[in-house]
Amino acid sequence: MPEYAIGLDLGGTNLRAAAIDRAGHVLDRRATATNPDAGREAMLGHMVRAIAELRDVCGAGNLAGIGIGVPGFIQLQQGIIRNSNNLVCLEDFPIRAEIEHRLSAPVILENDANAAALGEKWMGAGRDVDDLVLLTLGTGVGGGIITGGRVLQGCLGMAGELGHMTVVPDGNPCGCGNQGCLEKHASATSITAMADMMHLGANLSARDVYDLALAGNEKARHIFVIMGRTLGIALASLVNIFNFPLYLLSGGVLAAWDLFAPPMLDEVRRRSFAYRITQTRIEKATLGNEAGLYGAAYLPWVGQPAVNTAGKE
Amino acid sequence: MPEYAIGLDLGGTNLRAAAIDRAGHVLDRRATATNPDAGREAMLGHMVRAIAELRDVCGAGNLAGIGIGVPGFIQLQQGIIRNSNNLVCLEDFPIRAEIEHRLSAPVILENDANAAALGEKWMGAGRDVDDLVLLTLGTGVGGGIITGGRVLQGCLGMAGELGHMTVVPDGNPCGCGNQGCLEKHASATSITAMADMMHLGANLSARDVYDLALAGNEKARHIFVIMGRTLGIALASLVNIFNFPLYLLSGGVLAAWDLFAPPMLDEVRRRSFAYRITQTRIEKATLGNEAGLYGAAYLPWVGQPAVNTAGKE
Repeated sequence: MPEYAIGLDLGGTNLRAAAIDRAGHVLDRRATATNPDAGREAMLGHMVRAIAELRDVCGAGNLAGIGIGVPGFIQLQQGIIRNSNNLVCLEDFPIRAEIEHRLSAPVILENDANAAALGEKWMGAGRDVDDLVLLTLGTGVGGGIITGGRVLQGCLGMAGELGHMTVVPDGNPCGCGNQGCLEKHASATSITAMADMMHLGANLSARDVYDLALAGNEKARHIFVIMGRTLGIALASLVNIFNFPLYLLSGGVLAAWDLFAPPMLDEVRRRSFAYRITQTRIEKATLGNEAGLYGAAYLPWVGQPAVNTAGKE
Repeated sequence: MPEYAIGLDLGGTNLRAAAIDRAGHVLDRRATATNPDAGREAMLGHMVRAIAELRDVCGAGNLAGIGIGVPGFIQLQQGIIRNSNNLVCLEDFPIRAEIEHRLSAPVILENDANAAALGEKWMGAGRDVDDLVLLTLGTGVGGGIITGGRVLQGCLGMAGELGHMTVVPDGNPCGCGNQGCLEKHASATSITAMADMMHLGANLSARDVYDLALAGNEKARHIFVIMGRTLGIALASLVNIFNFPLYLLSGGVLAAWDLFAPPMLDEVRRRSFAYRITQTRIEKATLGNEAGLYGAAYLPWVGQPAVNTAGKE
């Protein structure tokens, strides 16, 4: 059995874990539904069991380490999820210490979008670069920044909250307290809300709006133009800030690429001098919802930079 | 004589060079007016002479290296200034190679705002952190990002163009092709333009507008509120993107801090969850226009990360 690492991706609806070797081959995997209503103890049990089973099957001797991706703001030094809309039962609890205790092994904790960005760098669309930005377009908009082949953490591990960049200063209100956040104009949820505002129908899914647009509905098409332009504003700023070679988009809304990408790229071209004079790539991520799993498994190999203590609360 | 480095800061109006030791003591310095109209050869002569004189005085044996900060987009691998509003005569010319040839010594080239950010990290307001963002509020708005104690370069050395973040999607037009760039709402030039728009007077300097505001002129005060809010929008996005412990402001417009900082900080507080729950600091830089000189001198000690070749034109 080759050296391998165990990655676990904890989402609001699914928990997935895999034993992956250094070359990126999945040796074995586990998956189960996440049921936040069952409470913390049940969820911890699922996580520890999945990891322990994989370790038993693949052998503790060849295990390079364990990485876990979770949604929310994470205080890295303490290993605590500070704020997570989908997993409230795990908030403000020393989750890393508890899992380490139960497994008698060290664990690296990471934000799920950061882990996804790292996964794309390792085995996905970012294999040929060391610096990239990933935007995940789903229920919300998440972000991950890879620089020098590693996750940019920030001083508390909260870097990469790209869904809360202000793109429309007087735009839609956001639960974070801001208004005009990227995720209020470019997520699946915002597509539903815009369809409602335009009287296309209440509670249409992003997919429903996409189908209407494909069928020629002008209002539905316009929603994806707004979404593309808003993404373009954010991406242009990101290109001007980072001058990275690659910016990736992932998530369910990616299915509407043909509708939102042209206005998005027009906007980036117009708003970023750096984009116009370089070969900066803005592309689809390739690992889909496996990216976070790969990134979590890669964490033990790439390591986590020391977290700065300055600015800590 | 202790080990020392030579830093040179080339601005649109002044050229300054200094020999600085590892502890930050200035051993000797040179300064001269920059006259871009005199042409490239004259300017290269001034630069090489200042550096050579300092090396002669302080001794070639103890020289750790030479760093040069210049305004504009720089292609780091080639050592070429690609675009510089103030120093057009040096554009598209292999400036690094030419200076190295004339001095028979290696030279590290860096963007001036990046050098200023590094100087503040070394000897200024950022001494106690390894990660910071600097915004320079002058004729334009420049930016520098320090992560892990070093300049974030991007793939062509063009990272940190924070003055061209979009803060008002339909805002003032910018020479970069965009509209609503930060520097069109928060630079000295933009204060002059806003004063003109508000019929306060044509070609008032930022200082004139500041004096009017202090004298109680409501329109003048409002200009600094607009400036502060716009800065706040950009800073909130930067806090959400980087989660760094420190964000610094420098430049001539800093004199109006008391007028623009309160609305700026209100805006950041409202727009950034991460800012509200952490001890993130937004402060004045302390080295003034010496920051770029210190940062340039520090470059040989801290080194320049290898520039990624992916995404290169």
